[in-house]
Amino acid sequence: MAEHGSSACSHPSERKYKIALCQLFVSKNKLENIRHARELLEAAADGGAKLILLPEMWNCPYSNELFSLFAEEIDADDLSGSPSCGMLAEVSRSRKVTLVGGSIPERFGSHLYSTCCVFGSNGKLRARHRKVHLFDVDIPGQLTFKESATLTAGDELTIVDTDVGLLGIGICHDIRFPELAILCAERGADVICYLAAFEMNTGPLFWEVLQKARALDNQLYVATCSPARDLTINHAAWGHSTVVGPFGEILATTGHEEAVVFADIDYAYIREVRLRLQLEKQKRKDMYQLVCVSNCKF
Amino acid sequence: MAEHGSSACSHPSERKYKIALCQLFVSKNKLENIRHARELLEAAADGGAKLILLPEMWNCPYSNELFSLFAEEIDADDLSGSPSCGMLAEVSRSRKVTLVGGSIPERFGSHLYSTCCVFGSNGKLRARHRKVHLFDVDIPGQLTFKESATLTAGDELTIVDTDVGLLGIGICHDIRFPELAILCAERGADVICYLAAFEMNTGPLFWEVLQKARALDNQLYVATCSPARDLTINHAAWGHSTVVGPFGEILATTGHEEAVVFADIDYAYIREVRLRLQLEKQKRKDMYQLVCVSNCKF
Repeated sequence: MAEHGSSACSHPSERKYKIALCQLFVSKNKLENIRHARELLEAAADGGAKLILLPEMWNCPYSNELFSLFAEEIDADDLSGSPSCGMLAEVSRSRKVTLVGGSIPERFGSHLYSTCCVFGSNGKLRARHRKVHLFDVDIPGQLTFKESATLTAGDELTIVDTDVGLLGIGICHDIRFPELAILCAERGADVICYLAAFEMNTGPLFWEVLQKARALDNQLYVATCSPARDLTINHAAWGHSTVVGPFGEILATTGHEEAVVFADIDYAYIREVRLRLQLEKQKRKDMYQLVCVSNCKF
Repeated sequence: MAEHGSSACSHPSERKYKIALCQLFVSKNKLENIRHARELLEAAADGGAKLILLPEMWNCPYSNELFSLFAEEIDADDLSGSPSCGMLAEVSRSRKVTLVGGSIPERFGSHLYSTCCVFGSNGKLRARHRKVHLFDVDIPGQLTFKESATLTAGDELTIVDTDVGLLGIGICHDIRFPELAILCAERGADVICYLAAFEMNTGPLFWEVLQKARALDNQLYVATCSPARDLTINHAAWGHSTVVGPFGEILATTGHEEAVVFADIDYAYIREVRLRLQLEKQKRKDMYQLVCVSNCKF
């Protein structure tokens, strides 16, 4: 959902820029996490990045037991109730960068969401995306996790107009559903940012293929950001934050340690790829169409 | 499109079986191609396969100049006008196997199609799929090809009920469009068969990722069949015919030489994967839906 009446129609003036993914270590101390995230965001800005990503649940260890404890209320007009978003607003304004602020547990009434806040380079909250597809899985002996036990799913898809272009936003399990990426692309997204904490079973199986497929199918950039791996918690993250180009090619990636990953984004390249192979035109919209239905405010 | 009123509702009785992909060399002699395809199909049947695939344009070199010359009319009730389909009917009946007969150039009135005929294990034509997405591409200095210069696109998606289950059918560029695979999965396909002649530019970039993504996103088997590589023609095939499982795992594959690739299909495994991670249930159909529209007879 976009805040402050941002429009998804205009095109960015800045067509080439540097993106950075902050693959950070998440501790059990929220204030320490905020301090540390600021450190990495500033390092990314110092490195010349104009668009910077944080991972899913960057202020809170990934655990159903802790989401409520670490949750914050996010009031777009008064961020004093959210130290995490307050820091993001400050850094984006002072460094004049666009921040896709990973996700944090958001309290809204009696509900908890996994929410990504996007800040423009003027420090204003431009959009918030509440994770739309919750991760419930049951592989006996390997992996059982039920996010829906504590979190509520959002019911809006998010594309946000920023100084660095139209960004589609997804959180972790959202990447499993090609429909979200197709809809973002149809509405003009140049980059889809997936903030994720894929874990050690699904990571090696799916992580790379899904990123490549979403980029390839929609001829756009895909940027993913994961926490660094912490083997002391149950839901240790796979890491491997990555930027993929519109041909499905990996432009930059990393392992599972803490890292800031940089890559160059060039929208002229997307246009070139789309001119050579006109997938959007070749879609058989006379035969099938992906449509938003009642509950979708996209 | 399904012939003879086949229904897409029933489930196969045979839940475990062997599949084979005939990655064959295509010459400029149609009768020789038919003879040779029969040889490989019989070898696949001898190897125990119950479902056997041929590649895209297996009776004809892949060239806009030749499609018309090699084309056949396909009358479901009288296959005498189509020596290629006549052979497929004979082999499927005599060996009691289901054949997904690659594609051949089909003449229908003034139109040419790239058409896949599916024969049941009783030798009857069960369905024909006319390539829905034609491959037009222009990468200066690397690859220029315009299939639409000679071929007409089909306007039906195809799922066919056979002795070995519900098969979705796609031809080559059809694999580039996730919508086709999603629609096949929603209608109950257990396996999607893509008959393809990916070439030497797009093959290394896309071939493997696309197969994995279609399988992974829809939690089903994907089987692809390519011609063997012939470097004497312009549109040399990438090869690498492959069977991918519902976790996106490669179950069997090959290089670019002539080969018959075997793999085991087990529908119980699909059910298990879908039970553990219920992607279909987790799709947000309250937010988005992929719908068939006017021109689609699916």
